[in-house]
Amino acid sequence: MQVKILGSAAGGAFPQWNCSCPNCHAVRGGQFQGKARSQSQVAVSNDGESWFLLGASPDLRSQIEGSPELHPRLGTRSSPISGVVLASADLDHVLGLLLLRELQPFRVHAAESVINILRNDNSMFRMLNRVPDQVDWRTIQAGQSFTLDSPTGDGGAIGCRAIAVSSCYPAYASQVQGAQEAVLGLILTASSGASLGFFPQVAEVTSELKSIFATLDCLLLDGTFWSDDELIRLQGSGQHAVEMGHVPVGGEGGTLQQLAGLSTPRKMYIHINNTNPMLNEASAEYRAVRDAGWELAEDGCHFTL
Amino acid sequence: MQVKILGSAAGGAFPQWNCSCPNCHAVRGGQFQGKARSQSQVAVSNDGESWFLLGASPDLRSQIEGSPELHPRLGTRSSPISGVVLASADLDHVLGLLLLRELQPFRVHAAESVINILRNDNSMFRMLNRVPDQVDWRTIQAGQSFTLDSPTGDGGAIGCRAIAVSSCYPAYASQVQGAQEAVLGLILTASSGASLGFFPQVAEVTSELKSIFATLDCLLLDGTFWSDDELIRLQGSGQHAVEMGHVPVGGEGGTLQQLAGLSTPRKMYIHINNTNPMLNEASAEYRAVRDAGWELAEDGCHFTL
Repeated sequence: MQVKILGSAAGGAFPQWNCSCPNCHAVRGGQFQGKARSQSQVAVSNDGESWFLLGASPDLRSQIEGSPELHPRLGTRSSPISGVVLASADLDHVLGLLLLRELQPFRVHAAESVINILRNDNSMFRMLNRVPDQVDWRTIQAGQSFTLDSPTGDGGAIGCRAIAVSSCYPAYASQVQGAQEAVLGLILTASSGASLGFFPQVAEVTSELKSIFATLDCLLLDGTFWSDDELIRLQGSGQHAVEMGHVPVGGEGGTLQQLAGLSTPRKMYIHINNTNPMLNEASAEYRAVRDAGWELAEDGCHFTL
Repeated sequence: MQVKILGSAAGGAFPQWNCSCPNCHAVRGGQFQGKARSQSQVAVSNDGESWFLLGASPDLRSQIEGSPELHPRLGTRSSPISGVVLASADLDHVLGLLLLRELQPFRVHAAESVINILRNDNSMFRMLNRVPDQVDWRTIQAGQSFTLDSPTGDGGAIGCRAIAVSSCYPAYASQVQGAQEAVLGLILTASSGASLGFFPQVAEVTSELKSIFATLDCLLLDGTFWSDDELIRLQGSGQHAVEMGHVPVGGEGGTLQQLAGLSTPRKMYIHINNTNPMLNEASAEYRAVRDAGWELAEDGCHFTL
């Protein structure tokens, strides 16, 4: 399975348009030991021909242009992107669907509640169904498996299993009931048997999740915040990381500590917020992550499992 | 008045993600005599401190990062962007509002019907009003004037007048009634008296529009399509330019011909579709535009009126 990380930051990206925190200020000034990042976006392929997107970030247009694998190859209008799997209805995870609106057919796999939020409560998504052969919406359920296959059936399918990880719908959809599937983690298994876990939002590291993580060849995990009060200390007000559905990376109860014994061969933090001190490669936090055997996902990182 | 053109392409940008028309194919291959372009976006300022956006393109995040004038300058969270004026509810003109959602206060000036489409029919726009001091929505009307001023009142205001130019709402909002203000043109007048016309979508060049254009110091005009059947010839099916609310640039009845005598000092085509042959600077179409005294707007172009 080929894995391409097109973006690795949390919503707003790094730097963020209205932020001059130490990280954003330094990276704009060219004084930062670390990299700018676009909003989290992963693409996977079993055969290198047909690609599937995990989420659809607001930066998707430039992320596609920066990836020759994802450029059209056949005829005047086409795309090697066969489908999108949505893990939540968060804006930084779904807005990119509206950038794929030029009458191109592809599939979107998502929880029923997420599909309802997009299609019933947001008329803009009608642009994805202007003609009969455009977007094919497919419902997925937590705990169940489905397959990602190319339109021709060539190239072998990727198996996908969705795991419920948070009951927290985005603020714009706060009235949603039945919160089992608000945020999903995704486990992708190639025809070779290689497996990837995509968990950009984790509210709690349960024993079930620990067991799942231990079976993976590669884990992409929530690296949003280093500490629970990161935004509050910076801004003087705001929400705690845990209130926003994100276990912090550092400190007591952080994922570095909770997953210290995890034997997964490749472990990467993704969905990293602009305020997170581990973005600074000269920092103690970055050193702690690397010393613990974790990587920070970077835009453009491409590997085969 | 400072004018900064942050993007100059039509919806989908150039190249477009799923297009391999001759222009898109050549520009991706580095074989094109002409420039790639992000989606149309203009910023204006009376004093160089407080800026106003004309529309909010889906590429706004990278357009802001590429423009030091628009970076935060004060405190941890801030922006020199004081407001946005919307000319329509087209996705390529409004999606960028959702990229400005980090609790930052600013004003949005738009027609009542456009505000209703966004706020009543698309729950995602609730993200712009999560706290009391966030987005302040202000209704504008065709034929009437309003002012764009900075929050502090310093720097002098820009006067703005909206002109109805099309009764064609976007396809996702097809049920809207009372189509007087579906698409507006904007006339901006600085405290110096200098004037800019922003008309990225013009369905018909009326005598009223010709009179208005003649009074301007600079006109940014609909350059979407060169010919009426441009998309149909390329794809074998689709809509005519005029059906989509765009007068073509070339040919009999095109804007080059209709505005041949226009004395406006600076005349630029903007909102240029990826299929438009005038993007190719080696083409006869490009030559015809330049010989007629027009420019093609380019990303990053910055001038003072």
